[in-house]
Amino acid sequence: MKPLYVAVVGATGLMGRELLKLLERRQFPLTSLQLLASDRSAGKQLFFNHQEIEVKELTSASLSRLNLVFFAAGTEASRRFSSTAVKNGAVVIDQSATYRMEPWVPLVVPEVNLEDLKHHKRIIASPSAATIQMVMALAPLHRVNPIRRAVVATYQSVSGAGAAAMEELTNQAKQVLEGKGVIPHVFTHQTAFNILPEIDVFLYNGYTMEEWRIKEEAAKLMHSPDLAISASCVRVPVYIGDSQAIHVEFTNPINPEEARRLLAQAPGVKVEDDPEVSLYPQPWAVAGTDEVHVGRVRQDVALPNGLTMWVVADNLRRGAINAIQIAEALLQNGWL
Amino acid sequence: MKPLYVAVVGATGLMGRELLKLLERRQFPLTSLQLLASDRSAGKQLFFNHQEIEVKELTSASLSRLNLVFFAAGTEASRRFSSTAVKNGAVVIDQSATYRMEPWVPLVVPEVNLEDLKHHKRIIASPSAATIQMVMALAPLHRVNPIRRAVVATYQSVSGAGAAAMEELTNQAKQVLEGKGVIPHVFTHQTAFNILPEIDVFLYNGYTMEEWRIKEEAAKLMHSPDLAISASCVRVPVYIGDSQAIHVEFTNPINPEEARRLLAQAPGVKVEDDPEVSLYPQPWAVAGTDEVHVGRVRQDVALPNGLTMWVVADNLRRGAINAIQIAEALLQNGWL
Repeated sequence: MKPLYVAVVGATGLMGRELLKLLERRQFPLTSLQLLASDRSAGKQLFFNHQEIEVKELTSASLSRLNLVFFAAGTEASRRFSSTAVKNGAVVIDQSATYRMEPWVPLVVPEVNLEDLKHHKRIIASPSAATIQMVMALAPLHRVNPIRRAVVATYQSVSGAGAAAMEELTNQAKQVLEGKGVIPHVFTHQTAFNILPEIDVFLYNGYTMEEWRIKEEAAKLMHSPDLAISASCVRVPVYIGDSQAIHVEFTNPINPEEARRLLAQAPGVKVEDDPEVSLYPQPWAVAGTDEVHVGRVRQDVALPNGLTMWVVADNLRRGAINAIQIAEALLQNGWL
Repeated sequence: MKPLYVAVVGATGLMGRELLKLLERRQFPLTSLQLLASDRSAGKQLFFNHQEIEVKELTSASLSRLNLVFFAAGTEASRRFSSTAVKNGAVVIDQSATYRMEPWVPLVVPEVNLEDLKHHKRIIASPSAATIQMVMALAPLHRVNPIRRAVVATYQSVSGAGAAAMEELTNQAKQVLEGKGVIPHVFTHQTAFNILPEIDVFLYNGYTMEEWRIKEEAAKLMHSPDLAISASCVRVPVYIGDSQAIHVEFTNPINPEEARRLLAQAPGVKVEDDPEVSLYPQPWAVAGTDEVHVGRVRQDVALPNGLTMWVVADNLRRGAINAIQIAEALLQNGWL
């Protein structure tokens, strides 16, 4: 096998650390691993495979002699440095929003549209966590019975906003429990014991960027440019694990039993659905698991040929697995 | 004016205490007030208008010589004792689910269908908190542009499950912050830092009773038996204040500006909608206010003639105000 020089950009962030954990656990066959981050984090030591690795500052020079670079930092880092990595010969798997909607960049969830990978031009985009879990639950149904429209309301954990957001939830929860006032920093308003219908910036049409992304990314992933998806994306005081209430209209009738059967066979999906014993996915239980968990599948009483379900996944874990599965597919196809 | 002898059943519960607070604040013109509760709570002293009142045990005998009885306990108390109150000459305003769907019982939100009150047979039902806030936001639009279908996802606070549920959230939050395990009592699963898509019992069709209630109660209140409403009702770790993401399909086109204008004129509704400064309703800020707060009004991109909005209200407050407004209307019509 050829040697495989890999770098992770944003290695010290929540997404980066999750990626390292899973590269290790899945025994990703790398020859060497570079950890890159902003100058603030440079000099930190992280463990990988029982070995300490020093985090280096992300610069153009740091991106040479690499075969594969995971970008797990924000859009800023991807925009500034991904083309350098590509010019220097690497393939980039980008977890930021930078390239997702670029027509020439494949946006891939391996369980859903692995075939799109073959047209890649050395940059492959991985979708937002919210999109990944939604399409993993919808695509297995869409394939046999095309979806006409969907309404999605999300219950997204603070980890999607990074480590500082998780700390803010802890600090604020303590302050509220002690009867103290709270001053928000990471979020616009108090997050502890509160609900905020604001994730990412607002667009001209009243949707947030996060809500719009779900619609656009899902349409691209499922090759259905006209797919009508309306989302309400909402932050809830949960550390890890995003939940979604999804109401779907299909082209033809579909019943809950059939949907459960199709989902149970879908790769990466786990059906947990037994109301009699209050069995349904919950973020507290789902955190730390690999699968997209689906429950509360029922006939929708408002939409024609409608189905409703409750979908929960570990947002960090699912994002990392998605990026690594893209890398594994590149390897299998000899593209690295 | 005639003397007005009033009793509150369930006076020591969260709903009952909120009712007392508001009867006092709105200077409801009562001659005497009886406080009734289960034998467990009998003997407690509660303040009303700077006067201590002893809570008496709810028995058939306790319900004599009354003009008006608020039932703010569970269905059990309403089922067993409301007919006794009526037989003894009182009018009953019932906040439980017992009579809401009985065809001979008016179900009333005064801002929406006050006219239904005139057919009352001495029992009037007040809807669930979730229904009240939803129809107060939908009815002003439905009147000028009939609603065809709606999809609602809720973010409901633990106070809807009573005082013990609020205490459980506090205790569990402390335990989680101390790194301890948690044992649920009031709820089926952990509620702190978690999300539970289960409110009330599950029905044969996979919906919960709470979800089904929203659909049935809204159809009755808005005199639209065919109104198609599909709800996902979800418990979130918030003390007071219920939020709802509502996606609506209308008969004719409607734009967000028009909807905001209609809602701003609607009684009991407050529009808080300015994305540029992150202004939208949040339960933490809405707790302790009287109005139903509406924000994030936008064109729905999935539903034809669609509109999406975010609706938040203080569930305890709104339930109590609704019951008292029914009583005030009875008084004004000389029915007490």
